Amino acid sequence: MGTEFLKIIEVDEAKKIIENLFKENYEVKSENISIANSYNRVISKNIDSTIDLPPFDKALKDGYAIKAEDSFGATEENPKILKCIDSVKAGSFSNKTIKNGKCIEISTGSPIPKGSDAVMMVEFSEKLNESNDIAILKSVPPTEDIANKGSDIEKGKLILKKGTILNPVKIGLLSAQGINDLDVFKKPIISIISTGNELLNTNEKMDYGKIYDVNTNLIKGAILSSGGTPIIKGIVKDDYNQLKNRINESLKNSDILICSGGTSAGVGDVLKDFIEESGEILIHGIAFKPGKPTLIGKINGKIIIGLPGNPVSAIIVYNVFIDPYIRLISGLSEKEANKRKKFKLAKRIHSAKGRMEYLLAEIKNNEVYPIFKDSGAITSLSYADAYMKIPKSTEIIDAGEIVEIILL
Amino acid sequence: MGTEFLKIIEVDEAKKIIENLFKENYEVKSENISIANSYNRVISKNIDSTIDLPPFDKALKDGYAIKAEDSFGATEENPKILKCIDSVKAGSFSNKTIKNGKCIEISTGSPIPKGSDAVMMVEFSEKLNESNDIAILKSVPPTEDIANKGSDIEKGKLILKKGTILNPVKIGLLSAQGINDLDVFKKPIISIISTGNELLNTNEKMDYGKIYDVNTNLIKGAILSSGGTPIIKGIVKDDYNQLKNRINESLKNSDILICSGGTSAGVGDVLKDFIEESGEILIHGIAFKPGKPTLIGKINGKIIIGLPGNPVSAIIVYNVFIDPYIRLISGLSEKEANKRKKFKLAKRIHSAKGRMEYLLAEIKNNEVYPIFKDSGAITSLSYADAYMKIPKSTEIIDAGEIVEIILL
Repeated sequence: MGTEFLKIIEVDEAKKIIENLFKENYEVKSENISIANSYNRVISKNIDSTIDLPPFDKALKDGYAIKAEDSFGATEENPKILKCIDSVKAGSFSNKTIKNGKCIEISTGSPIPKGSDAVMMVEFSEKLNESNDIAILKSVPPTEDIANKGSDIEKGKLILKKGTILNPVKIGLLSAQGINDLDVFKKPIISIISTGNELLNTNEKMDYGKIYDVNTNLIKGAILSSGGTPIIKGIVKDDYNQLKNRINESLKNSDILICSGGTSAGVGDVLKDFIEESGEILIHGIAFKPGKPTLIGKINGKIIIGLPGNPVSAIIVYNVFIDPYIRLISGLSEKEANKRKKFKLAKRIHSAKGRMEYLLAEIKNNEVYPIFKDSGAITSLSYADAYMKIPKSTEIIDAGEIVEIILL
Repeated sequence: MGTEFLKIIEVDEAKKIIENLFKENYEVKSENISIANSYNRVISKNIDSTIDLPPFDKALKDGYAIKAEDSFGATEENPKILKCIDSVKAGSFSNKTIKNGKCIEISTGSPIPKGSDAVMMVEFSEKLNESNDIAILKSVPPTEDIANKGSDIEKGKLILKKGTILNPVKIGLLSAQGINDLDVFKKPIISIISTGNELLNTNEKMDYGKIYDVNTNLIKGAILSSGGTPIIKGIVKDDYNQLKNRINESLKNSDILICSGGTSAGVGDVLKDFIEESGEILIHGIAFKPGKPTLIGKINGKIIIGLPGNPVSAIIVYNVFIDPYIRLISGLSEKEANKRKKFKLAKRIHSAKGRMEYLLAEIKNNEVYPIFKDSGAITSLSYADAYMKIPKSTEIIDAGEIVEIILL
């Protein structure tokens, strides 16, 4: 029992190694998807407009397309009379050309007929008789109530930048361009294995000495929120051959593998031995509480992560060391900053000097309540909204101080 | 052309009518789902713990289960010697009972054997010989390094309240309880129809006088973010019988129907006539810019919404009048408050007095830039992050004032 650590390294050094590991061993991929399925996906290439918007000179009001000069001097008392030569409904258009003295009835959104340079709103015009005489009651300048072709968006202009997350309005913008499919970041496929002789699946009956596996579902949810596609590979006993077979099988169809161990000592020697034999260990032990037993390595260019078995430790290590880099390769790094918030500390924190510590915290009434429970306590998870970092050199943070937290 | 309005009503009155419509015509439903698929779902019933956690008195350290009194007086210089009678690995347990002078080797997380009331850490003990004599190097009090059964969570206690959104840590908490499936709010099924002779699907070729349909994909994304399940029912021409058939078909398998019209006058007379004939119109016209042509009604207890055809107007009306009530019936109303933020206004706003107005806005460097473009302008959608309300009585808001915005 007890794990032999290669060399415990500092948090910042670990972050650099992990960032490089992700950059060098994961090739960011694109996939082409339908606009109808693009909600919350991330654009992987700049997108230029493919058409002018509006696609033609467009009427902004219901009324009559006229030559503006034919309205000059018109008033309610002294209207000008034009002859209506056609009528256009939305979705249609007129082939006729407007000459002086003529007009064409049009709807909002219709193309402006040739020869016309203004729209007379229906409110300032009056149909006089069956012979299509229209009284114009107001004088309007050229361009009145017309949106010119390309005035909203010109064809060929950049409309959305690489890295944009597609919210409803941005999906609307692409639809207006007639963009039916588009390239987005492919989500990295991440397998999850929980190890430990004491673990039960949630669909199994409780047995003395056993506990239910928390990490599979916990890490699955965390991967979804980081922008990855999780694959559950189940529970494996603390057995070298079983773990080896499950890992080899998992690596076939995934980009990254996240294991977690059933004991406080982490995934332990079995995973470490297997990675050493088949690949390379890059990190074994990080100098912070509660993530010391973290294991980072690679096998045939695939990233392998060994999290502590304790769920509280596992989710903190995941959030500090794994989430930022999954976001990076999923195109979501922009969103990272929004997770950091500053609040007033509600309770004094006392931390061991000379050791970096990460604490779970609850945000209540705009104040931060650190969660001090022993990291084995599952209740921590019911309150936790965020986590916070306590630097190596800090021993005490007083209540009332402003601290930065990172939302879970 | 032009729509006859029943009676234009004020924004607050409209909100009350819509809230009642949703409360009275939509019965909130639950469904039972697997914990593995519960990410971001909303719990529809309070959940109590089903087991004690830990499920047994548990060792918090690797070491030896002892009677604490057997350690009293032990030091490195004067150790006490105990006979080790068994060894327990994680996931297993010992049937033996510890009597004075005996101990059992255990791992973190293992059940404490009968007769033991303390754990001696492996760091303060020493295996002396093959005959299993263990030297105890320190005196510990009873309960040392033991977590009692139920000390973390007691069976039968409330652990998550109805309305809780399941983030990864809350999914972890439920997993620890061996909860394999659970009741969540069923997402309301919402059909989407776009109407207008001028509309093209994004997979169709551009044709003179036509425009691409924006609202189907825009509203689909918006429904996803409100917690509903959208169903695309496609584009319908401005034709009574076609619309009637498509609506009747849509209502069969959906709870709510959202139509939008292709013209600035909204879905227009065709939808209004059909609802009047088959059901009841509750709202036809709301006194604000740009949502005047909004239509709200019901047919056989199903909610029907007619949005303006203009995408900018449609998304504002959706966000102000529809999103809050879809969240309400999806169990997501709690999240509503997080969408409201206060920022400094970057540019002076001039609004028509005597009319409520909602404006799209961009948030940049913690300042609000109102988007003044004509509501037909699709570019508005590429910048919009939020919308803001300008009260009826307000004519001018000066740059530098603090305004509340609601995130899209």
